Amino acid sequence: MTNLLWPGDQRAGEHMTDAALLRAMVAVESAWLEALAGADLAPGDCAATDLSNLVGDADGESLAAAAEGGGNPIIGLVELLRRRAAPAVAPWIHRGLTSQDVLDTALMLGVRDVIDDLTAQLTQQLSTLSALATAHRATPMVARTLTQHAAPTTFGAKAAVWLNGITDALEGLRGLVTPVQIGGAVGTRAAATELAALLGAAGPADISDRLVRSAATALGLDVRSPWHTTRTPVTAAADAFVGCTDAWGRIASDVVTLVRPEIGELSEPAGEHRGGSSSMPHKRNPVLSILIRRAALAAPPLAATLHTAAALANDERPDGPWHAEWDTLRTLARRTVVAGSQAGELLAGLRVHSARMAENLRMTDVYGEQRATAELAGKAASATYVGAADRLIDESLGRAERILKNR
Amino acid sequence: MTNLLWPGDQRAGEHMTDAALLRAMVAVESAWLEALAGADLAPGDCAATDLSNLVGDADGESLAAAAEGGGNPIIGLVELLRRRAAPAVAPWIHRGLTSQDVLDTALMLGVRDVIDDLTAQLTQQLSTLSALATAHRATPMVARTLTQHAAPTTFGAKAAVWLNGITDALEGLRGLVTPVQIGGAVGTRAAATELAALLGAAGPADISDRLVRSAATALGLDVRSPWHTTRTPVTAAADAFVGCTDAWGRIASDVVTLVRPEIGELSEPAGEHRGGSSSMPHKRNPVLSILIRRAALAAPPLAATLHTAAALANDERPDGPWHAEWDTLRTLARRTVVAGSQAGELLAGLRVHSARMAENLRMTDVYGEQRATAELAGKAASATYVGAADRLIDESLGRAERILKNR
Amino acid sequence: MTNLLWPGDQRAGEHMTDAALLRAMVAVESAWLEALAGADLAPGDCAATDLSNLVGDADGESLAAAAEGGGNPIIGLVELLRRRAAPAVAPWIHRGLTSQDVLDTALMLGVRDVIDDLTAQLTQQLSTLSALATAHRATPMVARTLTQHAAPTTFGAKAAVWLNGITDALEGLRGLVTPVQIGGAVGTRAAATELAALLGAAGPADISDRLVRSAATALGLDVRSPWHTTRTPVTAAADAFVGCTDAWGRIASDVVTLVRPEIGELSEPAGEHRGGSSSMPHKRNPVLSILIRRAALAAPPLAATLHTAAALANDERPDGPWHAEWDTLRTLARRTVVAGSQAGELLAGLRVHSARMAENLRMTDVYGEQRATAELAGKAASATYVGAADRLIDESLGRAERILKNR
Amino acid sequence: MTNLLWPGDQRAGEHMTDAALLRAMVAVESAWLEALAGADLAPGDCAATDLSNLVGDADGESLAAAAEGGGNPIIGLVELLRRRAAPAVAPWIHRGLTSQDVLDTALMLGVRDVIDDLTAQLTQQLSTLSALATAHRATPMVARTLTQHAAPTTFGAKAAVWLNGITDALEGLRGLVTPVQIGGAVGTRAAATELAALLGAAGPADISDRLVRSAATALGLDVRSPWHTTRTPVTAAADAFVGCTDAWGRIASDVVTLVRPEIGELSEPAGEHRGGSSSMPHKRNPVLSILIRRAALAAPPLAATLHTAAALANDERPDGPWHAEWDTLRTLARRTVVAGSQAGELLAGLRVHSARMAENLRMTDVYGEQRATAELAGKAASATYVGAADRLIDESLGRAERILKNR
Repeated sequence: MTNLLWPGDQRAGEHMTDAALLRAMVAVESAWLEALAGADLAPGDCAATDLSNLVGDADGESLAAAAEGGGNPIIGLVELLRRRAAPAVAPWIHRGLTSQDVLDTALMLGVRDVIDDLTAQLTQQLSTLSALATAHRATPMVARTLTQHAAPTTFGAKAAVWLNGITDALEGLRGLVTPVQIGGAVGTRAAATELAALLGAAGPADISDRLVRSAATALGLDVRSPWHTTRTPVTAAADAFVGCTDAWGRIASDVVTLVRPEIGELSEPAGEHRGGSSSMPHKRNPVLSILIRRAALAAPPLAATLHTAAALANDERPDGPWHAEWDTLRTLARRTVVAGSQAGELLAGLRVHSARMAENLRMTDVYGEQRATAELAGKAASATYVGAADRLIDESLGRAERILKNR
Repeated sequence: MTNLLWPGDQRAGEHMTDAALLRAMVAVESAWLEALAGADLAPGDCAATDLSNLVGDADGESLAAAAEGGGNPIIGLVELLRRRAAPAVAPWIHRGLTSQDVLDTALMLGVRDVIDDLTAQLTQQLSTLSALATAHRATPMVARTLTQHAAPTTFGAKAAVWLNGITDALEGLRGLVTPVQIGGAVGTRAAATELAALLGAAGPADISDRLVRSAATALGLDVRSPWHTTRTPVTAAADAFVGCTDAWGRIASDVVTLVRPEIGELSEPAGEHRGGSSSMPHKRNPVLSILIRRAALAAPPLAATLHTAAALANDERPDGPWHAEWDTLRTLARRTVVAGSQAGELLAGLRVHSARMAENLRMTDVYGEQRATAELAGKAASATYVGAADRLIDESLGRAERILKNR
Repeated sequence: MTNLLWPGDQRAGEHMTDAALLRAMVAVESAWLEALAGADLAPGDCAATDLSNLVGDADGESLAAAAEGGGNPIIGLVELLRRRAAPAVAPWIHRGLTSQDVLDTALMLGVRDVIDDLTAQLTQQLSTLSALATAHRATPMVARTLTQHAAPTTFGAKAAVWLNGITDALEGLRGLVTPVQIGGAVGTRAAATELAALLGAAGPADISDRLVRSAATALGLDVRSPWHTTRTPVTAAADAFVGCTDAWGRIASDVVTLVRPEIGELSEPAGEHRGGSSSMPHKRNPVLSILIRRAALAAPPLAATLHTAAALANDERPDGPWHAEWDTLRTLARRTVVAGSQAGELLAGLRVHSARMAENLRMTDVYGEQRATAELAGKAASATYVGAADRLIDESLGRAERILKNR
Repeated sequence: MTNLLWPGDQRAGEHMTDAALLRAMVAVESAWLEALAGADLAPGDCAATDLSNLVGDADGESLAAAAEGGGNPIIGLVELLRRRAAPAVAPWIHRGLTSQDVLDTALMLGVRDVIDDLTAQLTQQLSTLSALATAHRATPMVARTLTQHAAPTTFGAKAAVWLNGITDALEGLRGLVTPVQIGGAVGTRAAATELAALLGAAGPADISDRLVRSAATALGLDVRSPWHTTRTPVTAAADAFVGCTDAWGRIASDVVTLVRPEIGELSEPAGEHRGGSSSMPHKRNPVLSILIRRAALAAPPLAATLHTAAALANDERPDGPWHAEWDTLRTLARRTVVAGSQAGELLAGLRVHSARMAENLRMTDVYGEQRATAELAGKAASATYVGAADRLIDESLGRAERILKNR
């Protein structure tokens, strides 16, 4: 998948594309059908049926077009599956589910994969940044506050601050759950429970509970009470994704400043086709940082939409807010993966110009605070003035190490 | 084009799709090349060259993938055009332009078409709503405020209020301009002016000015000083689009209430496949209104992103904010067209149940204010209590008529 | 009024403070009472009554606290006015109005004053920037794109771009209308029309129409059909305010870059207490630009809230969205005035360091595009390479002049 | 504190008012001074000094007005403290801190209190909702999806869904940390470490570390590496607050529907002055739900602003984004407390009309799915059709209980 207006989109690969989500929707129907058959609530043929053969990428376009009729793509998908399945199997497909069950669960399958990819990205970046902070632990540079030269620091200290952000982002992802949504038409699991009552051996609620767990296990998702109108799984994922773009945006915002020719303390990794200009051949634009910043600017309002939708989720299934979520969540998720991939490339290839750092540090007298401190103490100032930078770098490294261990 | 997660997306047709924008980008390069040739700044062969044959839909994917290198798709497009054009023409392609010129102008071509479509939609809706307000001028219903029965009104009065919103939305669109962006590398039109200085007859600034006008005319766009970092054409369009979704969302928010079974005053137009449920065959969901509300909830944050980008547009061309605009604007524009089309269908087929309106009106005593007023006046209350509804309906009809005349 | 967390808030003076809005609410009740008396619908005593003596700043706190009961402050205000007015006048107060009429109209009075102040600010800035563009028409500096040195330009050309943004902002304000809201309980003006029917001479709808016009004239506001649920007056004002913060944010985003010590092309105006640091006496922070950027970042989401509220404005008066508007609009309006005042100070005192500009321009070879152009033309390059900068500056100056004339 | 435009604002009491934050700022300076003295880095007199006597509410206005000079209120505060403190103490005040340290820590003190209050609110609501879900476990009502009658459910099941949202919100709050911010001028704790190097016994980094821990303990806050430009403590709090308003908004969105006269299944608690209308005495508006919804609509964009600010936090201290946070965070926090208090009142007094629920349930045939299921199973349908509602209610109750135990 590519997007002419979101350069780098291909980095998100098949994450939550129409095709991937269609496969996920079919996987949800399959898992449920198998669960029904496994509990002897549907005929044995159902267990053996592979729904994934019945619907393919070629159906995507027409299913998407038909989705408007019922307001979502599941209705058409179920019709298609039933039409193409063996007659003995057909009526059991989707039995006990509602459209929202399938769509929400498919989205969570997509989100799960996105989380895994982001986790891998952040994990790699923890290593990269830990190495950078260690290597430049003592590389002096000027610290800038409110744009002005303020006091000395080291590039390692800056990298350690970036590292803290990445650690925070990873912590945010770690807390996420990606539950199946199985509530049936109105969140009571009525049809599944009815089937269990009519056909099942044990207590119907027990059986319907087991169905849900079995489908969740098959899909690799968590179990949770129906969340048709309690949208925390969506908003929490969105917040964690924005937590990632915040961390990367913060880094990129430093890079776009420090690569300015007058400052020249950093360069983006050079690539054959990277950073060129259509009219000025001499230019080398910090394209990765620019594209990361783009994502960081566009992400928070997408999460805001998801929260507004959550707050308006009314009745037993909502009258519009839910529908606003799907494409918003997908867009946010894919862009986060893209930004993460770009951030990984940026950090891995970042070039540090310590000579320019030293030169800029000499530009302004940034020792006024030190002199005032020494005067107050009635002593001669120390030879350096980077404070507890070393200790703080160690703190950041240690925290990163701990989160990597506690995976 | 379809979007599995945005049912109805096909209603936006080819508006601002990757393919359409790629054609628009080529059209911009063509118009500029012709302008250069027309001013004798480029060889005569250039005038006769049809660039649109050189690049096709099949190139979209690879151009999109390559766009990340330079941060935007134009760099690759120009390389492709130059590689495929006749050697005498190739070096003149894109001469005097910068990537942002081509991308911004192509976006404006897309926006122009969107505006035209939205204008047609709103114009049609003005007629529909005018007819509805007229027909139901005297259809009594209860007015609801803060969810409670408040006083009598007529459905015509409600339709007139909806009509005011549509008129406002159209006024918002009418004010938009869609200018070409032709500033060259840094907004000074330096390369074009240099060419004019070296090759032109008249004053170079005059010539470069004429080039811009000529390209704008060829493209059907407005002329404006370069706006690389003055993003009003983008934000104004976004605000006007959100003005549309506000107006439609406001209507749909009424419909989702009034179609509730307990209220039953309106129904959405029935369609063969419209409003069905995947598990409950008896249901008839107000799908159009639901999908319109979805768009109305998701639109304002997209416009917010565009404003934030505008406020951060720095230097002579920005370091990230610009890049956040493209897909955001496209998404907002397409969704607005979709919502407008759905709103048109909704209004054209809206079914009004005046018996239920009358019944609900009788449910609560809503004449307390009238009695208090009459008592204060020391007179017997009038027979009706819909105030100046008739006059206000006429005002709305008149305003709609005027805006239609002043097109 | 001050706000410890929004430095500079006092620049907005009394604009839309609780006290100012309370006075505005009373002014609305007064204007309406006079209109009723003027049309002989209320006793003559009413015309002579000055409601503004009845309620003062001291009542603000208790009215605010009581506002929760009915969901808005008007209910308590009306009770207070009636309790304190002469018995012959009391029952006529607020007759024919609803809470929303008074609150919306009071907000529009506040917005009107804000618009006037912003207009004056922008007008002044047009002059300042026109002078700056003229004075530095030929001050060479390097143009930066995507953070990198791109080609030469002049500071006058940059100032002209800023000027375009200010002109756009003023155009946005010019288009605003600030209407009274007089719809009565459900937007039909029922009570006023009933009074007119029972007591009036002419047709009741004519009379109620005249009442509205008369109140509007007294308040200095525009006339419009009731807009209880058609919130364009609010959203249009919000969009125009954000248009202002966009324009100022865009300028401030340049300043925070160009004042960096390594670049040093601009300085903020020096003030005695301006830009100091709590720990580093040597620092001179670009405080005005920083505070302007703050406003520009916070404004777009506030406007988004107002649009979402508009899209959800249901029934004859809404069930929550309206209530979300008031403080949001006030906050946005005040902050815009503050930012405008800071921008005025920034621009008026901006110090331009042309020597540093010249020095930075020499840093990088930015003539590659020119050489390529000359080579293509088969001629020797011109002596300069600022293109049509002069012409574009004139265009901006001319446009600013025209908008000032067409006030 | 009251706010005429945000009815109910007084429910947030002194949380994060200017006065409260000013006290918090002084408390931060005090805690730090004591830490310095406690570590023998400042004279013994400092330990005995109570700074809170030196600055009072009366100073708020002038400090706020002066805050613009340096861009934040701390600079003026420090000047004031030093002017008023004993000469031996004065120069040690704020030694080693930077403005951002004091402001961020003061905000965290405010946030800590807000979290505690919200936690108490949510805890109470868990009880209320658990009781409601239990009491109405078997109260039949119609479940509505996409506005239409869908299938039977019970009010207990609905209350259990609300309960899940409240539990999620509490979980969100539980995860928050509120760290001190002590980084010194550029995040290296340079001045404190220098003092320790010149005057201290142990290793300077150890000492500065102990200073931070000691101040954190005194203030009741967490310890964390400096987060001047890693804004997770702010964004995480914002996300958790919006998680609360989401949960309450979702409930209120049900209430505003179910109190409609035609539906009549719920009423808001009646209060003497609650829900009145300025023009229609018969009305009883669902004011609490309306005001809660207001907050839920306005909250997500405020969090979006905080995320955008986080993503743009550059250098060692940012050039505008930080300044956008303070008032935004305060507004969001206070409004969340207000909404929580209103939600508590709403839930505690909610009146459930089971007869109307039963009546509405009979209105539509909502057993089609059940019949289809029974037919497929080849059996007679069960007597009821609320599925596993009972089991799901128990799940929600159990989860609520567990979270209350694990505090």
